[in-house]
Amino acid sequence: MSSPLISLLTDFGLRDPSAAILHGVIAGIAPGARVIDITHEVRKYRIRDGALLLWCALPWLPLGIHVAVVDPGVGTARRPVAVRVARGDVLVGPDNGLLLGPADRLGGAVAAVELTNPAYRLPRLSTSFHGRDLFAPVAAHLANGVALEDLGPSLDLATLVPSPLPAARVGEGAVESEVIYVDTFGNVKLSALSDEVEAGLAGLVPGGRVRFERPGHAPVTLPLVRTFGDVAPGRPLLYRDSYDRACIAVNQGNAAQLLDLVEDQPVTLRRAHADA
Amino acid sequence: MSSPLISLLTDFGLRDPSAAILHGVIAGIAPGARVIDITHEVRKYRIRDGALLLWCALPWLPLGIHVAVVDPGVGTARRPVAVRVARGDVLVGPDNGLLLGPADRLGGAVAAVELTNPAYRLPRLSTSFHGRDLFAPVAAHLANGVALEDLGPSLDLATLVPSPLPAARVGEGAVESEVIYVDTFGNVKLSALSDEVEAGLAGLVPGGRVRFERPGHAPVTLPLVRTFGDVAPGRPLLYRDSYDRACIAVNQGNAAQLLDLVEDQPVTLRRAHADA
Amino acid sequence: MSSPLISLLTDFGLRDPSAAILHGVIAGIAPGARVIDITHEVRKYRIRDGALLLWCALPWLPLGIHVAVVDPGVGTARRPVAVRVARGDVLVGPDNGLLLGPADRLGGAVAAVELTNPAYRLPRLSTSFHGRDLFAPVAAHLANGVALEDLGPSLDLATLVPSPLPAARVGEGAVESEVIYVDTFGNVKLSALSDEVEAGLAGLVPGGRVRFERPGHAPVTLPLVRTFGDVAPGRPLLYRDSYDRACIAVNQGNAAQLLDLVEDQPVTLRRAHADA
Repeated sequence: MSSPLISLLTDFGLRDPSAAILHGVIAGIAPGARVIDITHEVRKYRIRDGALLLWCALPWLPLGIHVAVVDPGVGTARRPVAVRVARGDVLVGPDNGLLLGPADRLGGAVAAVELTNPAYRLPRLSTSFHGRDLFAPVAAHLANGVALEDLGPSLDLATLVPSPLPAARVGEGAVESEVIYVDTFGNVKLSALSDEVEAGLAGLVPGGRVRFERPGHAPVTLPLVRTFGDVAPGRPLLYRDSYDRACIAVNQGNAAQLLDLVEDQPVTLRRAHADA
Repeated sequence: MSSPLISLLTDFGLRDPSAAILHGVIAGIAPGARVIDITHEVRKYRIRDGALLLWCALPWLPLGIHVAVVDPGVGTARRPVAVRVARGDVLVGPDNGLLLGPADRLGGAVAAVELTNPAYRLPRLSTSFHGRDLFAPVAAHLANGVALEDLGPSLDLATLVPSPLPAARVGEGAVESEVIYVDTFGNVKLSALSDEVEAGLAGLVPGGRVRFERPGHAPVTLPLVRTFGDVAPGRPLLYRDSYDRACIAVNQGNAAQLLDLVEDQPVTLRRAHADA
Repeated sequence: MSSPLISLLTDFGLRDPSAAILHGVIAGIAPGARVIDITHEVRKYRIRDGALLLWCALPWLPLGIHVAVVDPGVGTARRPVAVRVARGDVLVGPDNGLLLGPADRLGGAVAAVELTNPAYRLPRLSTSFHGRDLFAPVAAHLANGVALEDLGPSLDLATLVPSPLPAARVGEGAVESEVIYVDTFGNVKLSALSDEVEAGLAGLVPGGRVRFERPGHAPVTLPLVRTFGDVAPGRPLLYRDSYDRACIAVNQGNAAQLLDLVEDQPVTLRRAHADA
């Protein structure tokens, strides 16, 4: 009943056949595995985007093997790795910062190996498509029961490239954060988690108001609300998104467009005065 | 052999991981279910588009559970529902007009419940992602054999939000319709079904000609043909699309662009005189 | 354990439900089949693109039935066919050039039939959606064990429409080729295979340099390298892509944009002098 699960996240896009080729390679090695595509539309080379989307998705997927390939350094010295996490899953991909943030969501990394064993890759390793030749075969062999330790030598976890996902700075009455992602609805995700915003702006609860500051823009006041429909259509709002992250949206609209928000923009959140 | 089927239709887009998370939640609850993605690229918040695409797809899918989420009112008072249809399928989603048109294609709604039973949702219900927390779990539990009646109280079918899909007005010698969808080929779907056009323009058969009128545009004459290749490349035509809907296309071209057709445009079809 | 495999490649796009309907039809006829989507984002009506992407993908997929639908002539006299290849796979689609190039990658076509047997299509054949009414049902019946010969009369292989994929002309010290595809990374695929370039530019090995000429552009010198990271970020390069085709890329960039390369452009590759 319970097939081993393999998930895939890449920046390969959906027009080219690369993502399908991962499915084909896996089907050849581990025909009983179930494959879920997290996304293949990560923006090209954007390791942080890939890390964030994997961070969002993994807690909602069953225990499995998760292949992530956003790999501008393919074919160079960057190490191919597999990382076991506390929940029992294994994350497979390049050691370039893509994996450790998501690993933290599943209890954190507990072991890692470098993928050097030629028995668990395709016979010929290309220089530009390690997803096909290395990462997908490794995942399929793991699904077949191969032990992590057989894939290559153990790595000191402290040597893995750290996550590019930035942390917010929570001060007294102010949270310094930045825009880290604009989703396809135009909702704007901040580096700050909602718990951090509520801790920094002590006493803030839904119904309260936040002063939202950015260099070069006049400050705006945003209501902290439970859901989009708590404001009129077209109006902006701050909310706890479904991953417990602080997020700016517009009811039935596009917050990034309305407020001219772009990724990497530094932002500061403060408690708005009652008369603001 | 025959796994229960769950289909998914949303406006989540394919770059973000939301659609994959539905797969993950379903795999966790009903690992034996087979999942078909109808589309996740419904244009944001366009309930009518979602209703039309589901209307197109459902007759060609095996009996199953069909989850549809185009849900601008998520987190507000709109009711989450499951609707059983005459064919035996169950449609799951928000009660906002998305479900009843497609339900009619499977024989019509025969029962509906409001999804209030907390046993069949995730432990924590977010305010912005009911697809993950409510609709996907309900579908997975239905796939596992849970009865519709266990999901919540029965609803009077007459209280469900009606379909936003407009009807054509079939008169003597004229069919008043409107553009309801432009597909990715640029083919233009009308609210009128082909049988309605043929009834209104009595005697019209493939090979005949139709006068196509719109406010602010000169009328054009379109041949009613069986397929694209019945006219020269680049020429417009009227045809019975593969869902028996009246549709305007251009052989190997884009009808919406060529004829400047946009959604919601009112149009009138009349029988063209032989000398038109 | 080993379900029959069906792959799908179309230009239907992912917003409309057409691709999902193929899945639905297959699930109804052959519920045990495993379906892999190669892509549904082939550019509209681009038979050569479809042929190339299928050419890339098929060697990496397990033996199976491969449905390809880029079909501007749907509903006209073009023949619907199934082609068995030396590896044992069957390719299903319109006889318009889409299938023979990919067939060569699996050992070449060994038999073909015209799909005329009404027992293996849906009860009603539309004029505009043969993917649904004919090709997907045929694939599902093949997956169920129906013999190729039962699908219709045998065809002389010499009568099949030849592949639109152009060949390079390999001369003494020069390879005349053309741009045949720009992938979603902006990598530029040539009609020439890497072995052809190395044969024409005798003695060329990674580390060597190539003079790249186009009408209306000054020649540029490109290094032949093993992988992207062998040049600085933003710099162009020539490499053997992961399908052994000559390809132009930019390390972490978009070669088509940087070098103003478009499809169908004729190009000539020569050995660059040491002082170039």
